[in-house]
Amino acid sequence: MTIPISVIWKDEQLTILDQRLLPQTVHYETLETLEQVHEAIFQLKVRGAPAIGIAAAYGLALAAKRHDTADVGLFRHRVKKDADYLVASRPTAVNLAWAIARLVNRIEQAKTVTQAKAQLIEEAQLIRDEDEAACRNIGELALELLADKEKVMTICNAGSIATAKYGTALAPFHLGQERGREFEVYACETRPLFQGARLTVWELQQAGVDVTLITDSMAAHTIGAKGIEAIIVGADRITANGDTANKIGTLNLAILAHAYGIPFYVAAPVSTFDLSLETGSAIPIEERAAEEVAAIGTQQIAPAGTKVFNPAFDVTPANYITAIITERGVIRPNDRQIIEAQLYAEPLKGETI
Amino acid sequence: MTIPISVIWKDEQLTILDQRLLPQTVHYETLETLEQVHEAIFQLKVRGAPAIGIAAAYGLALAAKRHDTADVGLFRHRVKKDADYLVASRPTAVNLAWAIARLVNRIEQAKTVTQAKAQLIEEAQLIRDEDEAACRNIGELALELLADKEKVMTICNAGSIATAKYGTALAPFHLGQERGREFEVYACETRPLFQGARLTVWELQQAGVDVTLITDSMAAHTIGAKGIEAIIVGADRITANGDTANKIGTLNLAILAHAYGIPFYVAAPVSTFDLSLETGSAIPIEERAAEEVAAIGTQQIAPAGTKVFNPAFDVTPANYITAIITERGVIRPNDRQIIEAQLYAEPLKGETI
Repeated sequence: MTIPISVIWKDEQLTILDQRLLPQTVHYETLETLEQVHEAIFQLKVRGAPAIGIAAAYGLALAAKRHDTADVGLFRHRVKKDADYLVASRPTAVNLAWAIARLVNRIEQAKTVTQAKAQLIEEAQLIRDEDEAACRNIGELALELLADKEKVMTICNAGSIATAKYGTALAPFHLGQERGREFEVYACETRPLFQGARLTVWELQQAGVDVTLITDSMAAHTIGAKGIEAIIVGADRITANGDTANKIGTLNLAILAHAYGIPFYVAAPVSTFDLSLETGSAIPIEERAAEEVAAIGTQQIAPAGTKVFNPAFDVTPANYITAIITERGVIRPNDRQIIEAQLYAEPLKGETI
Repeated sequence: MTIPISVIWKDEQLTILDQRLLPQTVHYETLETLEQVHEAIFQLKVRGAPAIGIAAAYGLALAAKRHDTADVGLFRHRVKKDADYLVASRPTAVNLAWAIARLVNRIEQAKTVTQAKAQLIEEAQLIRDEDEAACRNIGELALELLADKEKVMTICNAGSIATAKYGTALAPFHLGQERGREFEVYACETRPLFQGARLTVWELQQAGVDVTLITDSMAAHTIGAKGIEAIIVGADRITANGDTANKIGTLNLAILAHAYGIPFYVAAPVSTFDLSLETGSAIPIEERAAEEVAAIGTQQIAPAGTKVFNPAFDVTPANYITAIITERGVIRPNDRQIIEAQLYAEPLKGETI
């Protein structure tokens, strides 16, 4: 029983877990060229904002090792070209652009190519390590909040395989498992793309966490029948007032938690906050293709040509959120001052909360 | 554009729509023997309590026509044997047993075999006609309640193909369509068996009603984003206090309706009430096989052997129900006196409400 890791850097080799094939096939693939890294991100073999950023950072450092020049200016030029190419693999992935920019900036002052090559690997490693530390901190804080709770529901996969390790919403279960703290997790399947059924169920099973699968439609009955004590989810974007965009279906769960009087937690790193937006109504909601709902793989479900509404995310108003758990501490929503103070505080590097 | 009918009796021939094949294949099948009727019910080609009762009634009358005897006692004996055989095709279907009992009782006083044969067909026709009238009455009352509303959400298929015609929850849409009253219907796909995506979407498309498919997880976001004004669902069983068992996912919608301040209607014939049960907590909830959730058809979704909780129904407490719409009138729940008075009143035969 081990916590699955999706981006692995070992002996200067980059290996990724092809998440498209899960759970039927567990296939790890070693990426040797910049083109392979680009393709792995473009084809969604790697998913989860932090995991994408980490894979891209290692990919850039890996490709740079092979640039055969002693001219540090020329080297930087080539790395910059590689960087642009990698960022283009998924232009909307903010974390990807952010990680790549960190590597590019890191070698600005390098004196030699040898030094620059080492700095790129160091910076990629740092990004990975910081993410694992952030997830562990989120897990610690979530464990405290869930101290007297055992039965917890979640949706989608805010898990270890979407991050460096531990995940965000799933971090307390992994951390708890390492310490002999047992949870009974109920995973919503997460229609239309089944990230809950395919990824969360597999990940928790691998780690030895007790997990039960339900359809999204069973959430209310399950809360009552099984005595669910809390719901914990990840986040794609959090606005200044605490409104939270996350996988479609999250809002259903938040409203149910409120109706049953159980806490509803959002677990997300500080980087998820977008303080340029005052409230969730400013978040654009991506609408995706009808076929994702009307068919499953090659299997048609609804009549061909059926009209479908397929929003990818929903926005949970802050008043439904008991607390937002970040790596820097627990934030009670609806207090912009508190959110800003915590976000702009000095990073807690190396500290444990 | 016509309202689909799933059990058709014409020129003394019984034809049924094979609902297992919908929506990809629209196949009507003529049933000629008692064995074929038994098989059609057993294999779920016919579904929906009223539709099953009607198909069985016609099936019994059809088989009786061929009993070649002039001895009315012997004839009754053979019909009784056929009746037992048909009831065994789906032992838990209360409506099936009830319809068959009506036919058997009807010929108790018959003087001749010729008379008895005619009575059986008459009684089957009566059961069908009464069901259509009940559904039309439900539709009329629902249309009144939805007078100022256009955007309505539903789940599962409480539709024409589950009854003689019109359905219960879908009756206002069909009746409205006949009169040029336009609705915008949002159909929840209804995991795990997709009755919404497969049956309701198809049925409403056939009838020319504007219908949009969503996953169950999209309900909350859709209510807000599309301005849903009401939710209407069917029922499997309603207890004395108005608590309502219906397809899993119904309770989610009832809680969302409450949170958004929109009405939540249950549409069901009086026969759905079970006054022997005081409250919904007394209703046993069937749990079904894990494979229904973990796989779709032959396509495995979750890891093999995954632990699944798969309740087929949930119970919506009466306080979440704005009104129960029956063929005899609209009942506001939580008033046992009113429910009993209405249920035990004389049938409103031929009357329009």
